[in-house]
Amino acid sequence: MRSTPTRFLSYINSHLSAAASLASSSKMKLLYPTSLKLDVSQIEGFPSVTLHPYDVKAPIPEEHVDAEVLVTWTNSSDNLKDAVNRLTKLRWIQSLAAGPNDVLSAGFDTSKVAVTTGSGLHDRTVAEHTLGLLLNSARRFYEMRDYQLQGKWPGHLGGPQPDRPSDRFTTLRDARVLIWGFGNIAKTLTPSLVQLGSQVRGVARRQGVRDGIEVYSEDKLAELLPETDALVMILPGDPSTKHALNAERLKLLPKHAWVVNVGRGTSVDEDALYDALVEERIGGAALDVFETEPLPEPSKLWKAPNLILSPHAAGGRPQGAEQLIVENLRRFLAGQQLKNLI
Amino acid sequence: MRSTPTRFLSYINSHLSAAASLASSSKMKLLYPTSLKLDVSQIEGFPSVTLHPYDVKAPIPEEHVDAEVLVTWTNSSDNLKDAVNRLTKLRWIQSLAAGPNDVLSAGFDTSKVAVTTGSGLHDRTVAEHTLGLLLNSARRFYEMRDYQLQGKWPGHLGGPQPDRPSDRFTTLRDARVLIWGFGNIAKTLTPSLVQLGSQVRGVARRQGVRDGIEVYSEDKLAELLPETDALVMILPGDPSTKHALNAERLKLLPKHAWVVNVGRGTSVDEDALYDALVEERIGGAALDVFETEPLPEPSKLWKAPNLILSPHAAGGRPQGAEQLIVENLRRFLAGQQLKNLI
Ligand SMILES: NC(=O)c1ccc[n+]([C@@H]2O[C@H](COP(=O)([O-])OP(=O)(O)OC[C@H]3O[C@@H](n4cnc5c(N)ncnc54)[C@H](OP(=O)(O)O)[C@@H]3O)[C@@H](O)[C@H]2O)c1
Ligand SMILES: NC(=O)c1ccc[n+]([C@@H]2O[C@H](COP(=O)([O-])OP(=O)(O)OC[C@H]3O[C@@H](n4cnc5c(N)ncnc54)[C@H](OP(=O)(O)O)[C@@H]3O)[C@@H](O)[C@H]2O)c1
Repeated sequence: MRSTPTRFLSYINSHLSAAASLASSSKMKLLYPTSLKLDVSQIEGFPSVTLHPYDVKAPIPEEHVDAEVLVTWTNSSDNLKDAVNRLTKLRWIQSLAAGPNDVLSAGFDTSKVAVTTGSGLHDRTVAEHTLGLLLNSARRFYEMRDYQLQGKWPGHLGGPQPDRPSDRFTTLRDARVLIWGFGNIAKTLTPSLVQLGSQVRGVARRQGVRDGIEVYSEDKLAELLPETDALVMILPGDPSTKHALNAERLKLLPKHAWVVNVGRGTSVDEDALYDALVEERIGGAALDVFETEPLPEPSKLWKAPNLILSPHAAGGRPQGAEQLIVENLRRFLAGQQLKNLI
Repeated sequence: MRSTPTRFLSYINSHLSAAASLASSSKMKLLYPTSLKLDVSQIEGFPSVTLHPYDVKAPIPEEHVDAEVLVTWTNSSDNLKDAVNRLTKLRWIQSLAAGPNDVLSAGFDTSKVAVTTGSGLHDRTVAEHTLGLLLNSARRFYEMRDYQLQGKWPGHLGGPQPDRPSDRFTTLRDARVLIWGFGNIAKTLTPSLVQLGSQVRGVARRQGVRDGIEVYSEDKLAELLPETDALVMILPGDPSTKHALNAERLKLLPKHAWVVNVGRGTSVDEDALYDALVEERIGGAALDVFETEPLPEPSKLWKAPNLILSPHAAGGRPQGAEQLIVENLRRFLAGQQLKNLI
């Protein structure tokens, strides 16, 4: 129970701040992108904020250069450069991408402009795609497709077969899955893997138990990689993760292990991966992300054996963006720390 | 609490039956197949039963024609015919297949020989494969493969995309999944679908709620099919299911709906399915089973658009066979009804 004086102060305060915002001559402008379907009605109802749609592939309209908040999604680099130069009052960018490399490299003055990511908005879509890639790898749907296209029955992949052989990755049941980059997406993926009977472990910067899963730091990789049937990489694309999976670490994986990467292409040394595939030192790789996207025509990966290519298709459709914008807008107006702040 | 006379009788009885089995000159013979790895130690310990391995592709050895119990797995039809003729004391066949069509058509005298199936031993393997086929369909890994093989980046399948469009099957989240044949495999598959956010409904002979899922009878199909994004067929291959999915019912599915069949090929009219695919009246089909297997070379299905072929690869590796054999052996010796009795 609050004491009466506190309740009184709180009452005065709320009326003062409401009064202040009503008195302020200009309301705060938030620009939201038309590059995705947003339910704007969910963001309305802030008396001190006005909402304005904008085209992410065009220059910012002159009447909106006084915007203080910019929500971004698949903006062109020209649009972002334009925003850097002309949005002089900008104080906060809410990207809807989990890894907003575009915003970070556009040249905003980060001493003045806070950047928050869309981490969390892609958890379910990326987790689902990752599960699909793992099952494609284990059940060899890609190889079945190759046979089908040639009009051949892939009999060696069907019919009676050994149950959970220890020298192959054929099922998620009892498979030892190591998730490197145990963040939001990994936490969303894990229950599906556990449901199918996988033994899940994680690697992140901070060690400890998260959601019931043992998470290790990178200095344990030399012990963990040899005990892995499927390595799932969900690392962000910053300098700290560059070629995290290199030739040396690839050598630590069992001969049958698969690598799945849905984080960023830069976290895998593609030349080293290619060599491991060609020399059959690993079972295969399913990649949704690449060092350069689209994968350049001359890349050797196109024809690497047991390489499943997915065209950065895991996420790409933020879910629940409205709630994140509202939550962060409330925090912003309250002068509190923003969620997903970089 | 039992009364004293009953306990006394029970005591006498158990000693009599133990004595009877010790006195009996010949113990009961069970033949188990060498076509899969069985942990025979788990089946040992029945004083009245002796266990003998046998080759499922060869005639039954002369010294074992007095066997009373036969466990079958991938037996040749010659072996089964031989068993029909020479195992004159046979009383029970435990098949490890979920749908033991081979045993049923071999000609055993079913008035004397009980046949039990391996239903339950394939739940997890088939459920996992089905989930993989559903994700392959939704995430279009087969189409990505076609592009990869041509050295082309399937850009239209990646990057920014609409979230859960109602006119396409792109994700299991919020997808309306109808499982036709809501038995053991369906019950094992359902939690994975629910975890990913699907709305699951079932069709079976008996209607009612099972494991929290609403299960309808076939007379509701005309209402259910138009409300389906993915139809999963897990029906047995008996006369009652022949061409269950026919031209008329295919017409009830939405234009974007996918059909996944992991039950038996006979439950789908393949000609009608081919027409629906070619005329783009459904989104696609992922088939693990076919009317004739291997799929004959002249079949039009090989090249049907959006047709994913899997070579009867979902199951094929019984899990927990030992426990089923032991459970049924106890029931058999006790004179009780067997589990999975046909
Ligand atoms: N393929 C796609 O379509 C797609 C879509 C969305 C996102 N993504 C990618 O997925 C990445 C992860 O997304 P998320 O939402 O799961 O991010 P998140 O919640 O921030 O998790 C990132 C994880 O990586 C760990 N990590 C970061 N740097 C590391 C380092 N140098 N060494 C070891 N671990 C490190 C973090 O460790 P701590 O927990 O200890 O900090 C955390 O566990 C994004 O950055 C994005 O690049 C891809
Ligand atoms: N692809 C593979 O590798 C593979 C592997 C294993 C099994 N299978 C196939 O999968 C089938 C199902 O296996 P299961 O273990 O799940 O069997 P199950 O537990 O016996 O379930 C069969 C289901 O089908 C329903 N059903 C049977 N006849 C029907 C009819 N005429 N109309 C509507 N529903 C009907 C049953 O309804 P009620 O519940 O009301 O009786 C039951 O729900 C097997 O028979 C086998 O052919 C395929």
